[in-house]
Amino acid sequence: MSYDKNACAPRPPMGWNSYDYYDTTVTEDRVLANAEYMAKELKAFGWEYIVVDIEWYAPGAGSQRDKFQYIPFSKLAMDEYSRLLPDPERFPSSKDGAGFKPLADKVHALGLKFGIHIMRGIPRQAAHAHTKLLGTELTAADVANPSSISRWNPDMYGVRDCEAGQAYYNSIFELYASWGVDFIKCDDICNTNAFADDRYTGKHEVEMIAKAIEGCGRPMVLSLSPGPALIDKAWHYEKFANMWRITDDFWDRWDLLKDMFTRCELWERHVSAGNYPDCDMLTLGKLGKGFGAERDCNFTPDEQKTMLSLWCIFGSPLMIGAELTLLDEATKKLLCNKDILSLLDPYRIRRQLYRDEDKAAWESKSHDGKDRVVALFNLSEEERVFTIPGCEKATELWSGESVSASEIRLSPHACGVYRIS
Amino acid sequence: MSYDKNACAPRPPMGWNSYDYYDTTVTEDRVLANAEYMAKELKAFGWEYIVVDIEWYAPGAGSQRDKFQYIPFSKLAMDEYSRLLPDPERFPSSKDGAGFKPLADKVHALGLKFGIHIMRGIPRQAAHAHTKLLGTELTAADVANPSSISRWNPDMYGVRDCEAGQAYYNSIFELYASWGVDFIKCDDICNTNAFADDRYTGKHEVEMIAKAIEGCGRPMVLSLSPGPALIDKAWHYEKFANMWRITDDFWDRWDLLKDMFTRCELWERHVSAGNYPDCDMLTLGKLGKGFGAERDCNFTPDEQKTMLSLWCIFGSPLMIGAELTLLDEATKKLLCNKDILSLLDPYRIRRQLYRDEDKAAWESKSHDGKDRVVALFNLSEEERVFTIPGCEKATELWSGESVSASEIRLSPHACGVYRIS
Amino acid sequence: MSYDKNACAPRPPMGWNSYDYYDTTVTEDRVLANAEYMAKELKAFGWEYIVVDIEWYAPGAGSQRDKFQYIPFSKLAMDEYSRLLPDPERFPSSKDGAGFKPLADKVHALGLKFGIHIMRGIPRQAAHAHTKLLGTELTAADVANPSSISRWNPDMYGVRDCEAGQAYYNSIFELYASWGVDFIKCDDICNTNAFADDRYTGKHEVEMIAKAIEGCGRPMVLSLSPGPALIDKAWHYEKFANMWRITDDFWDRWDLLKDMFTRCELWERHVSAGNYPDCDMLTLGKLGKGFGAERDCNFTPDEQKTMLSLWCIFGSPLMIGAELTLLDEATKKLLCNKDILSLLDPYRIRRQLYRDEDKAAWESKSHDGKDRVVALFNLSEEERVFTIPGCEKATELWSGESVSASEIRLSPHACGVYRIS
Amino acid sequence: MSYDKNACAPRPPMGWNSYDYYDTTVTEDRVLANAEYMAKELKAFGWEYIVVDIEWYAPGAGSQRDKFQYIPFSKLAMDEYSRLLPDPERFPSSKDGAGFKPLADKVHALGLKFGIHIMRGIPRQAAHAHTKLLGTELTAADVANPSSISRWNPDMYGVRDCEAGQAYYNSIFELYASWGVDFIKCDDICNTNAFADDRYTGKHEVEMIAKAIEGCGRPMVLSLSPGPALIDKAWHYEKFANMWRITDDFWDRWDLLKDMFTRCELWERHVSAGNYPDCDMLTLGKLGKGFGAERDCNFTPDEQKTMLSLWCIFGSPLMIGAELTLLDEATKKLLCNKDILSLLDPYRIRRQLYRDEDKAAWESKSHDGKDRVVALFNLSEEERVFTIPGCEKATELWSGESVSASEIRLSPHACGVYRIS
Repeated sequence: MSYDKNACAPRPPMGWNSYDYYDTTVTEDRVLANAEYMAKELKAFGWEYIVVDIEWYAPGAGSQRDKFQYIPFSKLAMDEYSRLLPDPERFPSSKDGAGFKPLADKVHALGLKFGIHIMRGIPRQAAHAHTKLLGTELTAADVANPSSISRWNPDMYGVRDCEAGQAYYNSIFELYASWGVDFIKCDDICNTNAFADDRYTGKHEVEMIAKAIEGCGRPMVLSLSPGPALIDKAWHYEKFANMWRITDDFWDRWDLLKDMFTRCELWERHVSAGNYPDCDMLTLGKLGKGFGAERDCNFTPDEQKTMLSLWCIFGSPLMIGAELTLLDEATKKLLCNKDILSLLDPYRIRRQLYRDEDKAAWESKSHDGKDRVVALFNLSEEERVFTIPGCEKATELWSGESVSASEIRLSPHACGVYRIS
Repeated sequence: MSYDKNACAPRPPMGWNSYDYYDTTVTEDRVLANAEYMAKELKAFGWEYIVVDIEWYAPGAGSQRDKFQYIPFSKLAMDEYSRLLPDPERFPSSKDGAGFKPLADKVHALGLKFGIHIMRGIPRQAAHAHTKLLGTELTAADVANPSSISRWNPDMYGVRDCEAGQAYYNSIFELYASWGVDFIKCDDICNTNAFADDRYTGKHEVEMIAKAIEGCGRPMVLSLSPGPALIDKAWHYEKFANMWRITDDFWDRWDLLKDMFTRCELWERHVSAGNYPDCDMLTLGKLGKGFGAERDCNFTPDEQKTMLSLWCIFGSPLMIGAELTLLDEATKKLLCNKDILSLLDPYRIRRQLYRDEDKAAWESKSHDGKDRVVALFNLSEEERVFTIPGCEKATELWSGESVSASEIRLSPHACGVYRIS
Repeated sequence: MSYDKNACAPRPPMGWNSYDYYDTTVTEDRVLANAEYMAKELKAFGWEYIVVDIEWYAPGAGSQRDKFQYIPFSKLAMDEYSRLLPDPERFPSSKDGAGFKPLADKVHALGLKFGIHIMRGIPRQAAHAHTKLLGTELTAADVANPSSISRWNPDMYGVRDCEAGQAYYNSIFELYASWGVDFIKCDDICNTNAFADDRYTGKHEVEMIAKAIEGCGRPMVLSLSPGPALIDKAWHYEKFANMWRITDDFWDRWDLLKDMFTRCELWERHVSAGNYPDCDMLTLGKLGKGFGAERDCNFTPDEQKTMLSLWCIFGSPLMIGAELTLLDEATKKLLCNKDILSLLDPYRIRRQLYRDEDKAAWESKSHDGKDRVVALFNLSEEERVFTIPGCEKATELWSGESVSASEIRLSPHACGVYRIS
Repeated sequence: MSYDKNACAPRPPMGWNSYDYYDTTVTEDRVLANAEYMAKELKAFGWEYIVVDIEWYAPGAGSQRDKFQYIPFSKLAMDEYSRLLPDPERFPSSKDGAGFKPLADKVHALGLKFGIHIMRGIPRQAAHAHTKLLGTELTAADVANPSSISRWNPDMYGVRDCEAGQAYYNSIFELYASWGVDFIKCDDICNTNAFADDRYTGKHEVEMIAKAIEGCGRPMVLSLSPGPALIDKAWHYEKFANMWRITDDFWDRWDLLKDMFTRCELWERHVSAGNYPDCDMLTLGKLGKGFGAERDCNFTPDEQKTMLSLWCIFGSPLMIGAELTLLDEATKKLLCNKDILSLLDPYRIRRQLYRDEDKAAWESKSHDGKDRVVALFNLSEEERVFTIPGCEKATELWSGESVSASEIRLSPHACGVYRIS
């Protein structure tokens, strides 16, 4: 029986990602602290992924933040087969070839799943040093494409579409499988922005990675970054991946949140079991420490609800950007609303009802049509009045209150999510 | 209860369109002759629409074919309210204000449905003559936008987004409803190609037309042309129309047919009851007389099957371009294959399995999953061998023959459509 | 001997244009008042053209300013040969077929030259009415291209590239010659903005107009609008016209003025006798009455000098936008600085010395190299210090003062023009 | 007195370049053989530059031609200061730190000038090895920009715009000056094609290189490649360089030659003493050996004359691509026509008279106007008849024959160059 890539993501993955708070500086103990929090406080609501984001393999990462987000030409931790390894300083349990296995084991022991970020490609340092590859006589220099680089990160060269290149990808996924990795966020691949007329230059690498996952013996969710994903490549993403970013890095700015309504409209028809257009991390709670400025998220409470409501009714994966151990009660409550989270179900029938500069509305129906939910969004800078046609009374799912559907007033940037009674 | 625009097109519309054979020169008796043929020979298989295409309102249309497809500044048949009327020469029954009513009545009497083509906008001649509009004191000059013209047809100005403009659109759809029109192919509106950064300049006119249909008292299928439709406007097409052209004018050339596989991949997720991406007319049988050169279609029998198989498994509307009364037996047989036509059912679950330069495959499953059909396409210039994984025997639906699914040989440009046993 | 199109513009034309103050509403008496002022106050400094700008042929022009700058579908003054005539209401002397002759005569009597604005093409009303053309049996409908319209003005259709089209252009230039026109500002032709990949769609009309001028028996300066002119069409402009707008409409805003430095850099090599890249009207003095809001120009005195200095050292034509009779003394003085105006000489050798976000410098040398002038521009928002290398003392040409060239301080947006001693 | 970058190129440089025949495989003895040929046979006609093209620093260059033109990650010859050195295998005299000095000395001894090709940037191997730089404490890793690479060559990283980066450029030009280099062809800099909206990403490196030349103590011609150069950067090229390629690599194909007429039209105004738009190498004689297929040039004799005539009348630099020692007599004769070569004089006044799909004509006048030459080009596929207006008799400069200027017949792709008597 062939591998079903959709089976490992029967609903939009929900989890935590280290990037928004830690940038490149996350450490093993902080990962564990967040995992423990999740297991205790959030797991019951469906939250389960713990994802270590970018440059876990880079000793000294973050130490030159005034000049570089990613220090060029620094020496990355790597094994003899050109495979990157966790920085032993930040991830002490990875020493002596253990890799992420000890950390993944601990996460698994908490009943959670473990994910890591990777950059498309093979380390530049491997290519220039002509280091070995597992399962082939060729070396890193033979599979590295010197013209295929990331626009923003200096670590890797793209891998050529050849047998030895596939062997390299196989070798790293075998390693990840041996560590117990459940989730791969592959970066610089969904939209490489390399050429104006060909933004999907890592297309063959997506296929190679999908094949490597299929052969590695452990199911893994495949998440592609960064966006915006290319709508004319939708079929390809859906064929080979589980989620793909429909936006460039999302941050806690209203213009970006408002713009997400355009993106969700565009991708509305592309949500199904195992296939999720991805609105990016939830910028909530404490953010930014690794970027040199710890801060509270800039969204108002209304905007936070708007973000969560859109992500859920649309069917996006949910990855929390906050440092979990610093979550305040109000934010935590947002993340534990079962009614709202239930909208993620990929079998629900969802559609945008309307959208203009000032207002948007989405509808979500259960597959049997018996449960109907409507979300109303005030995108404008003034209070707006909404109605839900053909409905008298409805229950607002954030507040739990019953409201009259004939005149619903929403503050600027606010939303309401209504179960039609 | 509000108007449900999807109700009038529960499955992809199937019919005949006058353009590919007659260009601008179709006449009442030829429309009727085709309708009679359809009623007798094709209706039983689901064919039901008879559509009169472009410039039925233009006396002398086609008389300067060496210079113009559409004669500029010629006098169009029009009523006192700036509404175009059938050319009484070509449509004699339309005289004395009868319009298309007598012809539509005859088509209806045959158990068929009647459609017409319109150009977005209001006649230029009306604007320059400041003629009246029904239901407003303003005149054609007030609602015509002198900067909004078709790139390729000289008849109309776009209508401004204003109350009097809506009144004009209402007035023409009331007229069409009074004639008994069931289907509107609105042209120069799906992709106006007016600006590189805004190709959907008739967007507000789509909304005005949808509103006019809703208010006219008669359900009408709304079909938008020409393409290629814009994928980022998909939501809008689906909200307001029933079908939209995903290609510029399709003709009987292999490069265009091969390219349609790209377009179907792009629009795969956008087929649902009442919503159909449209691959354009079926270029079969006799074509081209109105263009000055009557001819047989250039597609080989294999290519013809490939066209029909793709249109059906994808879920496109089917509009025959041939002069029906001249259909040969082989072509007619292609149009009467119930197994193939049954694939049009919008509730089937369809997806492209793979596609590259040489091969493509689509799968179509019934909604309950019990019936599974796979179509294989040889897009290359050499014989190719295909297999259907996980399947031993299958029935090919064009031939009715049972085949071994482990080695299927297809000629260049040929296809096979297999029901999995 | 063939017509030398460069002979009529031995140096950049200097004059007055009605647009910036009057928009579409200029009248005969106001034209004359400005001409009289010019003859008396400015002629001695080289100013000589009086140009009547857009829609002199449109009765009622400007009467619906709240809705339209150019009223669509209004009836234009036209002779039996589809040629536009002055609106007799605004230009009373034009009655009874006199056209602009009486007005031109008066301008000539003042020792000045007379120019008019035209739109590329033939009146739409002529095409729809199938009116006659001089010198051919064909009608306006035969030469008008219904797909060729201005993006912003509703009056005309483009003229097809055919014999009868040339006959039409010949007929209008014969008329203009009979009136005594010396200068034609042809609009919607330099950059029609019609297609992203073909912005010079009136190219053949430029050639037809050049040919019509050559044959009309009277030299006329040919000025092409609007811009931005296309650098890859530079050879064509230079071959057929005398001046071409290198900018869209210029107005009195600093961002537009700063941007002109980029444009002048681009066109630096294209100034020669008879050939002038055109920076557009000088927005000085009183402006805007015809637009519904008479006002003083928004430029500070420093910015006004910067504008004039750049236009002159670069070699642009100079057309005053102000109502001349309302000129204040300071503005008038700017227009009468012989040293500055002498820089217009097309035989001078000019080049930009440097340019960045904050500073720019141009050098102008007489053809024999004996006279050297350097203009320094402070493009920043702070005072800046400049030096003129290899120079100790210099005379600033606006102030007449001698300055030390080793430390020149300029206020934000200010300039200095220095004759090197 | 400041360095005058124009002084070293008072007329378009004429020479030989190793690329078209040798690709990356040229050797010292072949360079010398060509120099000796030039000194003996061509120098008298103005030919003087001997230029060693790409990858003289790459041991093993050309040894993997089936896979790579430029072998990635191979070890380049380099000194301790990150400066590339000649491959000692191919350039034996360069051993022991001598560099190109011995070879340059020999070229100079023949009365010729010596040039080399360089790639913009600093070796990738230096950045990854953190090697030293001369004149700064920083290392190659500090000045190399890991995101700035060539689209087509794997050797270098771009240099950052910083003091240490300037120090690096200074250090290599000091080395080149010590070798006796007279001409630098800097590649991957004129149009880097890196971003659709910023194709001149090496702009700051042009300035750094110009500064390094200015300071190195030896005048050097600065030639920028590859093209097409960007017309909106013309001012910048002219400010800092001597020649810049207006085309991508030119080869001996008629479509490329015909297209050069468009490019020359575009750059017509940009030829002056010290400033030369560059039409690329003359593809004549024997070509292609280093590419794996030695061959005769594909141009017919008529096309060869057309190429030379256009390059000369336009004012392009002339670099011979042929292996000189294999020149046949006919080709050699083309290169030794003093009348034709005299047209290169930058003080001549040149302009295209007309150009369409079928014909082109250029005029070249001496600065005093006394000598006038017209070149006629038949760009079509049929014989064409030309006239030279206002001229009866003329001398054709290739043949030396006197012809009647009223009817000149030219074969397809042929040209004639006429001195007007």
